[in-house]
Amino acid sequence: GGSLGLACRKRNLGGEVVGFDLRRDRLERALERGAITRIADSAEDAVAEADVVVIATPVGSIPKVFAEIASMIKGNACVTDVGSTKARVVSEIAGLPAHERFVGGHPIAGAEEEGIEAATDDLFEGCVWILTPTEDSDPASYTKLVRFVGQIGARVLSLDPSRHDQLVALTSHLPQLISSTLMRFAAEIAAAEGGLPLVAAGGFRDMTRIAASSPNLWVEILKDNTPAVLEVLERFETALAEVHGHLEAARWQEIAVALENARSARRALPGKPGVAPVELVELLIPVPDRPGVLSEITTTVGEAGINIEDIDIVHSPEGGRGTIHLAISGKENSRLAAEAVERKGYRVTSAE
Amino acid sequence: GGSLGLACRKRNLGGEVVGFDLRRDRLERALERGAITRIADSAEDAVAEADVVVIATPVGSIPKVFAEIASMIKGNACVTDVGSTKARVVSEIAGLPAHERFVGGHPIAGAEEEGIEAATDDLFEGCVWILTPTEDSDPASYTKLVRFVGQIGARVLSLDPSRHDQLVALTSHLPQLISSTLMRFAAEIAAAEGGLPLVAAGGFRDMTRIAASSPNLWVEILKDNTPAVLEVLERFETALAEVHGHLEAARWQEIAVALENARSARRALPGKPGVAPVELVELLIPVPDRPGVLSEITTTVGEAGINIEDIDIVHSPEGGRGTIHLAISGKENSRLAAEAVERKGYRVTSAE
Repeated sequence: GGSLGLACRKRNLGGEVVGFDLRRDRLERALERGAITRIADSAEDAVAEADVVVIATPVGSIPKVFAEIASMIKGNACVTDVGSTKARVVSEIAGLPAHERFVGGHPIAGAEEEGIEAATDDLFEGCVWILTPTEDSDPASYTKLVRFVGQIGARVLSLDPSRHDQLVALTSHLPQLISSTLMRFAAEIAAAEGGLPLVAAGGFRDMTRIAASSPNLWVEILKDNTPAVLEVLERFETALAEVHGHLEAARWQEIAVALENARSARRALPGKPGVAPVELVELLIPVPDRPGVLSEITTTVGEAGINIEDIDIVHSPEGGRGTIHLAISGKENSRLAAEAVERKGYRVTSAE
Repeated sequence: GGSLGLACRKRNLGGEVVGFDLRRDRLERALERGAITRIADSAEDAVAEADVVVIATPVGSIPKVFAEIASMIKGNACVTDVGSTKARVVSEIAGLPAHERFVGGHPIAGAEEEGIEAATDDLFEGCVWILTPTEDSDPASYTKLVRFVGQIGARVLSLDPSRHDQLVALTSHLPQLISSTLMRFAAEIAAAEGGLPLVAAGGFRDMTRIAASSPNLWVEILKDNTPAVLEVLERFETALAEVHGHLEAARWQEIAVALENARSARRALPGKPGVAPVELVELLIPVPDRPGVLSEITTTVGEAGINIEDIDIVHSPEGGRGTIHLAISGKENSRLAAEAVERKGYRVTSAE
């Protein structure tokens, strides 16, 4: 929340950044740091005039907060969150009034330290910001959020909520469990071995950096995404047991291949997509005017690993049909995005 | 090897840095980069005039290289290595002529990239450099190496060879296996799930950084330290299975405690000891003049996690006895070092 407020102000989004928190002292520190321009007296007061409402609470409280504010938001406002899991939040909100105005969000950026003191105004620069539209999502709310995320300096990737949870189980929640287990384990072994000095090079330090993260935050996240985490944890344990078997049987060739595959995969790991999109290509996709079309198209592009730089929906004057304009960065990516969308049965033209 | 040559020259150790390698092209690139001042025609030529000989080959070849050069070194020269494992190397060399001149070494610093191109002149600044003296070690060789390491800007920690191997199994070899397994596994899962885009935040990137390391180097290391690695791997798998059990049974309290213990351990992880030792305290330890005393005292200090900044051995004029002078950085560390040595039955006085 603090970093987002700082980013809005750094990027001159204009207007006010109004903050509300149950703890007044936090709001005062946020005001001092310039993360907000005004302290609201209540959640209702905070959202009453807002165009974009961001719920930045622990994941467990997001639906409750949405329920409290849903009836107070402006007619053209959109609501999102920054929670680390999405399926439960989105499905719980789907049962609430005004649910169509909510589109789940998750910026893939973060720090071990919590609180307004750890906030920085460039946390989201060039990061991937996942949005999880569903067939219930109001197209105008989604479109507004895509623009907002772009203005913050981040790049939108749209995914289905449960795909999102599967992805973060693999790339965030499992690594957190491994990092914490490795750190705790190493400290225990070192202590048990008569106080072996835990001299460690950079590799160990890197691997245990996130072990310093907030336990409370992580218990919340793990509670919310237990099935997906259990699935990847079990599969990881099998993969580790396989390596164990190779080592025990001195199967060096298999170990060399495994290490080589790991090296190739690490080198192929996509970097931050970068702040500045290059040569935008606009894709035009004629669509019937029915629910689910927008989320299907945008998550299809997201599943292909491609960011959406901008989006617009133009309705035909006769009604019943419209055209989605998607801005994609780079020719290769726009070609891949067009192919993926065409495979879903749409017709795509490029307005280069 | 390359980084060590650059460090010697940066720190103005004086004299020549003579290099030998089976591949002439590497020697030429090392000479161009200024990592060596002269290319030797043979291993024998390289060591003939050297005061300090460093064998920087893959671990498997170290004893063989030592055997080749042992008869050619000067009367007061010492030999060390920079291999990632120590017990096998030290025990194999113990059966060779001139073995007492060899003291195993392992700088706890490194990079994923290999070769002279990746060498940097500050790789060892402030890092821990483990030396593994045994009761066979020639005291003058060990003393000379302690000074050499200090001149490079690193800090000596002395450990028994097998303790060293246990330590690196825990803090280096196990993390390498985990990192590589996580990276390979994540890439495979993402591919299997219809090409889930592997969007990953800093935590995942940190945890998989060392997965880009050289497979050949790592197969060598794992071959050399298999029993110690298998032991910690098995114990780590048990620790991970325990976390798995907690997650499956929704034992959130246990998970919170585990995460909290990991956080405390990470925060307590000692940093780099730093380049500049503060207020050196000299400890005087009268010792009988018999083999094993020097390695016992220095590894006892090392097991307490304390670096040795300098060492001197003064023999009594009557012979049969002497005094070890140990320079330790800081009052608290020198007190802890003195206590540890006293527990082994020595008398320690401080010459502050």
